[in-house]
Amino acid sequence: MSAPRPQAEGEAAPAPGPPRHSGELGSTQASHRLLAYSDALLSIIATVMILPVAHTKIHPDQKLGESVQQLLLTKIAVYLMTFLIVTVAWAAHVRLFQVIELIDDVLALLNLACMMLITFLPYTFSLMASFPGVPFGIFLFSTCAVVIGLVQAVIVAYGFYHPYLLNNQIQVSENQVFYKHHILQIILRGPVLCFLAAIFSFFFIPMSYVLLGLVIFLPHITRLIIWCKNKTVGPKEDEESHRLEAFTFYLNEPLSKERVEAFSDGVYAIVATLLILDICEDNVPDSKEVKDKFHGRLIEALSEYGPNFLAYFASFVTTGLLWFVHHSLFLYITKTSRFMGLLNTFSLAFIGGLPLAYQLTSEFAEKSHNEIEAIQVSCVITFFASIFQFAIWITALFHERETLHPLARYGGKEHAFMFAKLALYPCVSLGAFFLTCLLSKFSTAIFHIMQIVVPFAFLALRILVRISLAIMKSMLSLSRRKNVVLDEEETCLSPAETLS
Amino acid sequence: MSAPRPQAEGEAAPAPGPPRHSGELGSTQASHRLLAYSDALLSIIATVMILPVAHTKIHPDQKLGESVQQLLLTKIAVYLMTFLIVTVAWAAHVRLFQVIELIDDVLALLNLACMMLITFLPYTFSLMASFPGVPFGIFLFSTCAVVIGLVQAVIVAYGFYHPYLLNNQIQVSENQVFYKHHILQIILRGPVLCFLAAIFSFFFIPMSYVLLGLVIFLPHITRLIIWCKNKTVGPKEDEESHRLEAFTFYLNEPLSKERVEAFSDGVYAIVATLLILDICEDNVPDSKEVKDKFHGRLIEALSEYGPNFLAYFASFVTTGLLWFVHHSLFLYITKTSRFMGLLNTFSLAFIGGLPLAYQLTSEFAEKSHNEIEAIQVSCVITFFASIFQFAIWITALFHERETLHPLARYGGKEHAFMFAKLALYPCVSLGAFFLTCLLSKFSTAIFHIMQIVVPFAFLALRILVRISLAIMKSMLSLSRRKNVVLDEEETCLSPAETLS
Repeated sequence: MSAPRPQAEGEAAPAPGPPRHSGELGSTQASHRLLAYSDALLSIIATVMILPVAHTKIHPDQKLGESVQQLLLTKIAVYLMTFLIVTVAWAAHVRLFQVIELIDDVLALLNLACMMLITFLPYTFSLMASFPGVPFGIFLFSTCAVVIGLVQAVIVAYGFYHPYLLNNQIQVSENQVFYKHHILQIILRGPVLCFLAAIFSFFFIPMSYVLLGLVIFLPHITRLIIWCKNKTVGPKEDEESHRLEAFTFYLNEPLSKERVEAFSDGVYAIVATLLILDICEDNVPDSKEVKDKFHGRLIEALSEYGPNFLAYFASFVTTGLLWFVHHSLFLYITKTSRFMGLLNTFSLAFIGGLPLAYQLTSEFAEKSHNEIEAIQVSCVITFFASIFQFAIWITALFHERETLHPLARYGGKEHAFMFAKLALYPCVSLGAFFLTCLLSKFSTAIFHIMQIVVPFAFLALRILVRISLAIMKSMLSLSRRKNVVLDEEETCLSPAETLS
Repeated sequence: MSAPRPQAEGEAAPAPGPPRHSGELGSTQASHRLLAYSDALLSIIATVMILPVAHTKIHPDQKLGESVQQLLLTKIAVYLMTFLIVTVAWAAHVRLFQVIELIDDVLALLNLACMMLITFLPYTFSLMASFPGVPFGIFLFSTCAVVIGLVQAVIVAYGFYHPYLLNNQIQVSENQVFYKHHILQIILRGPVLCFLAAIFSFFFIPMSYVLLGLVIFLPHITRLIIWCKNKTVGPKEDEESHRLEAFTFYLNEPLSKERVEAFSDGVYAIVATLLILDICEDNVPDSKEVKDKFHGRLIEALSEYGPNFLAYFASFVTTGLLWFVHHSLFLYITKTSRFMGLLNTFSLAFIGGLPLAYQLTSEFAEKSHNEIEAIQVSCVITFFASIFQFAIWITALFHERETLHPLARYGGKEHAFMFAKLALYPCVSLGAFFLTCLLSKFSTAIFHIMQIVVPFAFLALRILVRISLAIMKSMLSLSRRKNVVLDEEETCLSPAETLS
């Protein structure tokens, strides 16, 4: 009935059971479910800092502009940085379990310990952001990061102590010790910097921030430097290729596509349901109030919450459709480079802002001036979330032989259709943004029409694309026929010329 | 590097791309990611109604006993019923996508619409529960259910209109029309009852409740009746076997193990992080307050939140370890029957209560009397969550040939170890419960020791089990040697007797 679960690579055995080695290794297991669970935890944690942003009470008399600025300065920055930190931790986790392919009970428990510490990171970070001048906040964050690094180092050491758990490529390699030291070095680089930051926090705080900034941006800076070097000097010589190969194995290896998908799914799922969490808790009217205020008429009491429901449906639909686009895109992507992963992270970070934006639109249903701004914020967030998806597609097209399925490449059957799918949301949100600028009186109407039209546009997209392709083709053939006619005239002329 | 994603059954092709048919079917896709996303959404929604329970403010002067009773009557009942309703909807969804194995864009969008309505169900249900006498609440809930049913019926109709999307077994069957009517009948049975309930809500409310109760319990009642019939009368005759086969295909077919795992993972992940959601939002101290009240000492301000952090770690560890047990269990389960699915649902419903229980322990850190009750509630919830996991294992053992991997069956290498893993939490929680009854003064100490000891017990479990097995073996061999000695004495005697 159901599709069989993925087995670790190199295993042809379709047996549903877990133990794949006999003798002492009876306790070894494939790691996919552990990874799926980790992805779910990390994606929830990545988006959690949007809640303090979403629940900031903005006084209805206040202008949204000021409040948004106030928000932007602290809470949104905290949210975005948290998202980045968690995705860095997630990427490290992906890399770690590309080295270790099988798990046993000890590794599963160590991984859970690691997860627990990572889920605590956002809190320590928001403490650090709220008290930038207090050493304890930085100390806590750094200590957390150090302990995470140590647990990961223990996982690696355990893996190399039981080599049958490792990736095949390392298992058969002769340089296992070199690999081990190399991986430990990469893993412990961050914690060492954090350790220094923790020490510096007690006497020279700015240095701590520099060090922590280094940890987060180091992988990207390193890659940029390597990329620049390769562009200017050209790739390194044969002599060093052995070392380079080992290096690239961990730094430039594409991210596992499955885990990118699983992490994204988690973010989309929690974001889609963020508003219903609030609605279920806050918007069930009190039975006493209904009796006193609305004379027992439930519908009237509920109609007060109408905008909230609308906001929920709008954010669910937008998140759902952007998930749909993401899903369609990743169906045709065969390999995700690190840069595509980074673009995906940016897209997801904006996705996390969607419920917030839609909540704003519901809260300012009455105040017409603020509503336009709320709608515009929604449009901008939608635009960025979708344009980064589009950027993933463009990046994939640059290396289409390695990264794209043949059907989606230039000239492929699905190319035009994918293009239309990915371009729909950026175009619509940009259009709605400028329309609300021009026709500020009808902003709400424009926004609602956009929300209703988009799902149907997706349903009919295949037909629309076919029609427009047919029109383009007929126009092309028309112009070609003209060319052919011209050509014929020329060919008619030329023999005449040659004759003359 | 990474394991290949599961392909739909019967496909040997390892190609990473999605389109598996040529020609007109280029847009067809494997459905695994859609299902993973749906599972994530549904598992979040299933646990969402624990939030109103968790956030009920209990006055510290109030005795917990009364408050708990008050909670039990409404919010906990709403939570459990919501959980049950969502899992019924989830099971229907699993069944639906066991019929439809491939998807295209239209199906993906229809599924998203279906998800949106299902995520709204908990809210309508809690409205209905808060206003049991108001027709509108029942009407809304019933309408929602009717629309979900209609969307599912459209999905089925679409699937049969494009038969290449269907399950292989149905695709090659000659009775496609029969199957179609049969499936539509099963799917529309619920909505028809809900429709009647919606109508009845306006003039005879009790009838509505009876009808809605029927919808939720009908599958279980049907199964019970069939089971009883089979036990008393024996399985039906050959004549009807054709119809029976079709029937069993949808009602008694085991649930897809992967989807049970995915749904469970979602619940465990959201439950593990429920408390951090609150902590991130509420427990970042205000910088002004820290300055005024604690003279800028952050550590002192944070120490006020100490119990909350402890509660978070305790609930994360417990949820994580129960996930670990679940993971170990399902590694050895090859097939999940419906009854095992039901037990899993019960286990998950109690898991959902864990953060609430641990929050209670943190809130009553001072009041010693209430704390014992909070600790006992935690122990009871942990006990039930783990005992239902144990029950899954027992159920699996009853049909071990079909449901268990050879290593975990009676006499298998891993049998004793699995038994110990599954028995650890029920024993520990039961022990802690009775110890707190006896030594009420040391209840907190007992509880904390339990929390610290359990993870290490899991780490050392394999060694402990080996030691105890070795001891048992040596004792057995000792007693056997005694037997042998006795036997020898007997045999020594007997010849003598025969001689005499």
